[in-house]
Amino acid sequence: MTETVTKNERVAKAYEGFVKHMKNFLDEQQFNHEEYTNFVKWADRLGRSGEIPLFLDVFVETYVLESKYKGLPGTEPSLLGPYYDEGSPLIEGATKVMPQRPDEPGDKLVFRGNVSSVDGPLANTKVEWWQDDAEGLYSNYDSPAPAFNLRGQFYTDDNGDFEVQSIVPIPYQIPTDGPTGEFTFAAGYHAYRPAHIHIKFEHEGHETLITQVFFEGDKWLETDVASGVRSSLLTKLEDKGDHKEASLNFIMRPE
Amino acid sequence: MTETVTKNERVAKAYEGFVKHMKNFLDEQQFNHEEYTNFVKWADRLGRSGEIPLFLDVFVETYVLESKYKGLPGTEPSLLGPYYDEGSPLIEGATKVMPQRPDEPGDKLVFRGNVSSVDGPLANTKVEWWQDDAEGLYSNYDSPAPAFNLRGQFYTDDNGDFEVQSIVPIPYQIPTDGPTGEFTFAAGYHAYRPAHIHIKFEHEGHETLITQVFFEGDKWLETDVASGVRSSLLTKLEDKGDHKEASLNFIMRPE
Repeated sequence: MTETVTKNERVAKAYEGFVKHMKNFLDEQQFNHEEYTNFVKWADRLGRSGEIPLFLDVFVETYVLESKYKGLPGTEPSLLGPYYDEGSPLIEGATKVMPQRPDEPGDKLVFRGNVSSVDGPLANTKVEWWQDDAEGLYSNYDSPAPAFNLRGQFYTDDNGDFEVQSIVPIPYQIPTDGPTGEFTFAAGYHAYRPAHIHIKFEHEGHETLITQVFFEGDKWLETDVASGVRSSLLTKLEDKGDHKEASLNFIMRPE
Repeated sequence: MTETVTKNERVAKAYEGFVKHMKNFLDEQQFNHEEYTNFVKWADRLGRSGEIPLFLDVFVETYVLESKYKGLPGTEPSLLGPYYDEGSPLIEGATKVMPQRPDEPGDKLVFRGNVSSVDGPLANTKVEWWQDDAEGLYSNYDSPAPAFNLRGQFYTDDNGDFEVQSIVPIPYQIPTDGPTGEFTFAAGYHAYRPAHIHIKFEHEGHETLITQVFFEGDKWLETDVASGVRSSLLTKLEDKGDHKEASLNFIMRPE
């Protein structure tokens, strides 16, 4: 690599802004050199452990989204997080049954939603869904479940409606045995995220919407370690005896 | 690791301040999610490559020091950088001859200095010295030279004076073949640091002083990729025929 590598104006402007705000931060904090050195050692451990995406998604991503979507119409985004995986199976049929193990543990969930546009109705939106299992684990990551368990993609119908059959997600702790956990506890947080469903919407002419669904009454709503909860993303879990039901509508922004 | 791990008030306060200033930065920059994702991928490559200390020392450390020492009396600190190594040999004698290879390439240098305190004279200060060779490489890191080549520690005399015999350091590029180099060029920088000597002073009752010495007329003084140059750290290289001479005095701060 040589000096002829092209300057990227966006990166240059971002670093310039970063330095400006970092100076304000440093003037306020007055770190001594030992504190700086301890930070470098921790950051190096974080980097070498491969936990940078985890750390950034938990402690930074939500603020990126808040700044970008503040005051805009349509459903508020929430973090994509580190557990998204491309290539989940396409699910057909009127009711979209998430891939699951025989006797998948957990409470059965029927979730109904509608996807529209800020401008009005919207048919046939592509939806991707991923969530943890009743152990709080994600397939393709830390769960022993088959690949793409509780992950799938499908299309809404001509009215924008969809119905998913899955299990109720549970709260879980982000990994705590590495440098991210070390930071989490040192900063005075617990490691829990409230139960949530990850959901991503794509429709031509619209901005891709990545968000999450949360459930009223969850113990960790107020103190989500990833600060991902927005009140407009809350739904109520209704007990229907042999299963629970919930619903939420989503509104996409035209590009 | 469990939730009973002790909260560290300094870390908690630092993260709180970081979020506040990061929000200002993000409000200004308005990153979209693709830009955030590209940043995460780059940061993950940076972390896994082991270049986090390099990146932070080049692009962050100098601002930590500026914020901490702004307006204070005594010699201005400059970055420790990623090439410091503990345990360099103790050098005795009136003139401190840096460990070097037979026929060490480069211009011979005689450097004279004095170390005092903001409060007055200071005898017998411990000094550590490290620098690159005439190829721009550091022993113990990227140079094929023996361990601790051009690195040493010694004490000033009863008047705080010292004289070192070494070679003249040369400008060099920080590593450019990894994620740090990728960022450097994208942000519109070159990768050069002006020639400099690293020097560290320790004396009981005084704050450890880590700084660098630079040379007037160096091509890269104004655009040092690590922004480490301070005008008070500049000296003149005098040509004495078979060697060069330079000098600078240093003032430590009582704790």
